[in-house]
Amino acid sequence: MCEVTLVGGGLSGALLALMLARRGVKVTVYERRADQRADQIEEGRSINLALSARGIHALSLVGLDSEVLARAIPMRGRYIHPVSGPCSLIPYGRKPDEVIHSVSRRGLNAHLLDALSREANATVHFQHRCTHYNPRAGALTVYDEATTNEFTTEVSCVIGTDGAASAVRDAMMHSSRMNYSQAYLEHGYKELTIPPAADGSLRIEPNALHIWPRGGFMMIALPNLDRSFTCTLFLPHVGTPGFDQLSTREAASGFFARTFPDALPLLPNLEDEFFRNPTGGLVTVRCSPWHFDGRALLLGDAAHAIVPFFGQGMNCAFEDCEVLLNLFDQHAANWDEVFPRFFEARKPNTDAIAQLALDNFVEMRDTSGDPRFARKRQLEHKLEERFPGQFVSKYAMVSFHRVPYLEALERGRVQDRILMDVCSRASSLAEIDADAVFACLHEAIGNVS
Amino acid sequence: MCEVTLVGGGLSGALLALMLARRGVKVTVYERRADQRADQIEEGRSINLALSARGIHALSLVGLDSEVLARAIPMRGRYIHPVSGPCSLIPYGRKPDEVIHSVSRRGLNAHLLDALSREANATVHFQHRCTHYNPRAGALTVYDEATTNEFTTEVSCVIGTDGAASAVRDAMMHSSRMNYSQAYLEHGYKELTIPPAADGSLRIEPNALHIWPRGGFMMIALPNLDRSFTCTLFLPHVGTPGFDQLSTREAASGFFARTFPDALPLLPNLEDEFFRNPTGGLVTVRCSPWHFDGRALLLGDAAHAIVPFFGQGMNCAFEDCEVLLNLFDQHAANWDEVFPRFFEARKPNTDAIAQLALDNFVEMRDTSGDPRFARKRQLEHKLEERFPGQFVSKYAMVSFHRVPYLEALERGRVQDRILMDVCSRASSLAEIDADAVFACLHEAIGNVS
Repeated sequence: MCEVTLVGGGLSGALLALMLARRGVKVTVYERRADQRADQIEEGRSINLALSARGIHALSLVGLDSEVLARAIPMRGRYIHPVSGPCSLIPYGRKPDEVIHSVSRRGLNAHLLDALSREANATVHFQHRCTHYNPRAGALTVYDEATTNEFTTEVSCVIGTDGAASAVRDAMMHSSRMNYSQAYLEHGYKELTIPPAADGSLRIEPNALHIWPRGGFMMIALPNLDRSFTCTLFLPHVGTPGFDQLSTREAASGFFARTFPDALPLLPNLEDEFFRNPTGGLVTVRCSPWHFDGRALLLGDAAHAIVPFFGQGMNCAFEDCEVLLNLFDQHAANWDEVFPRFFEARKPNTDAIAQLALDNFVEMRDTSGDPRFARKRQLEHKLEERFPGQFVSKYAMVSFHRVPYLEALERGRVQDRILMDVCSRASSLAEIDADAVFACLHEAIGNVS
Repeated sequence: MCEVTLVGGGLSGALLALMLARRGVKVTVYERRADQRADQIEEGRSINLALSARGIHALSLVGLDSEVLARAIPMRGRYIHPVSGPCSLIPYGRKPDEVIHSVSRRGLNAHLLDALSREANATVHFQHRCTHYNPRAGALTVYDEATTNEFTTEVSCVIGTDGAASAVRDAMMHSSRMNYSQAYLEHGYKELTIPPAADGSLRIEPNALHIWPRGGFMMIALPNLDRSFTCTLFLPHVGTPGFDQLSTREAASGFFARTFPDALPLLPNLEDEFFRNPTGGLVTVRCSPWHFDGRALLLGDAAHAIVPFFGQGMNCAFEDCEVLLNLFDQHAANWDEVFPRFFEARKPNTDAIAQLALDNFVEMRDTSGDPRFARKRQLEHKLEERFPGQFVSKYAMVSFHRVPYLEALERGRVQDRILMDVCSRASSLAEIDADAVFACLHEAIGNVS
């Protein structure tokens, strides 16, 4: 029987384990943390995520899409909060199902682990941290935090699904020639909470992703099932404004009063949370290759951690799982064939989503408050309606379709340049000749594949 | 009294320790290896290096330049070995002192350590390996290989001079937001030996750096004081030709017979050495920042490992030491001031020499056997003679002057393009109007600073 050891039982590890177990593979998962289904939630960590087409499709392969969506909150568009003046909703898509879904990281992980626990040939060891791995020798060293016992086990095939700070990747880097880079943004992030109102009702529109774009920095908020919202402030670590300047309670609340006046009354615990929750870093990790012979592979954030601004980290990792599963089927479980093909297939696309995510930060913080941007989105919807299947916006290619990320990047950049140019020269949608714009786009890039 | 802990007592660690000890700093050095002055030489490691102007200048600051040069072998130019036909010497410079010097890594390190041992306020601990470092806590953990004892010591200021695989850098990467990349060439290297002839005489010209340029790959040889030469073969790890194909003694010697026919009889131990010596990787390491507050700093290869093709790794690291010493003097030993300024001053220049070294590999392997390249070098010498101080070749800026590397990169690229263009269109130096070429260069880039 084919065996595989997964290091990391988070979202991608749990999904991949489930997929492989259902193919008859004997799966052992070592997860550093305690079982989240029993444990207290960690404060200040990203607790909700945007699930979109790629993630939903991968979940459908294990039959979990419906129940996950049943506990998700649809977000129909970006709800823009200016410093003053009225808010506005910029829809993501034009059809009812063109929405993204706010899901709880914890809840989704619990769902996957529950399903996994029903597979006889899968075992999950919680509080088991990988401390060393030698891919040449096939020796994995694991520290059991509960018993404080460390042991080394022989492993024929290891998949590192252990996230951005992957221990498997570190080990591979030290035992093979791996090209590697980690690049931090100058911005960090801090999570804050908008609780439900005193009467239990919602304080802001639930079916939207809220953005306070401020040019150079921003805050966002995603809805939770308990009627709270998780806000994330993205701000330079050092600067004016910057986290380094917000070192007192007065400085922090003064900054919010000036910069996010409509959010301040929604954040009753602002000062406490601001100083209790950590300031996180935003890193892009790129490496190559992701595999060591047919013995070790990196997948998900371990191979390609990205910044969160396109909401694609989890969706991309789930798509990884789907691609790996297809190759596993095509190559009769022969990892020597599967791993290099997986890397070749995914690397250009994960490099592309890394870039799309970086680009989207600029769009969200700098241009989403710009009226030309709202006009561009209207024009995109008009083009999608008039030329169905022939025009697809960049956002839709990434979030509502499963077009390869590289194609979304390449087509999207050309489209965005042409559309922003048109929308800069027009003062309303009515002035724009959609047929002429489509002809121009078609000449530049043809139809979507 | 100011104190500093150096991790790594190789070339840059020993020189920096010496410089700081002479400024009255209490210096503690932990060196992973045994004292090389007593230990047997390691086979298959780079045993000679090219010392040039920057390195010599830094050594002069501690009064060691003359004695080091007394045990060095001047190399006047590139001695080109074609597959067939006569060899030729392409001089590096036009003046007698425009040479680079082959020095023994082991001998030079021994020199520096001997000088350091005479400083009362410096201590070197050999066989002491850094296993952990927490820059926030100022705690350095060291494993003593002789006693197998591991201890943690409080350190106010640590400088990592521990080379390309720096343990200090690894620790800083895990405790701060450090941007980092490691990029491998597709080529690896293997060292081989040309011993002296049976009668003790030299087998090839000693006062040159020998190159067997083969387009896409190459071999080089540098002279040693014992009348041997150390050869280094640079070849793709995988390819035709590639190290992966040279897996038998017959394949290796057949490859040398076809590719390096004049070298084969000079390498009597080729087959043994080829399979005994390791195949090394060629990596470029870039990171930023190099410092953590005023508490930790990376210097030399630990901060910016480069490929060896410009012979500048050691020279650049020694220049690092000189720049750090100057800042130490200017800022009265205040590391909080010194470290960020050091990083700002050096980073653009170390990025530049990393690129120059990569570029020079292409020049050495692909174009140094091209007659246009010999013509270009003649033209450079003519221009240097006719316009002294106004024209300096890229090679000379890097190797014979102390022009900032960034300036050498920027001016050098423009110069090289113009000069190669002129030399491609002429069939001899006599056809070229040096005044017109100089006017063209001057218009493009002005005088050297």
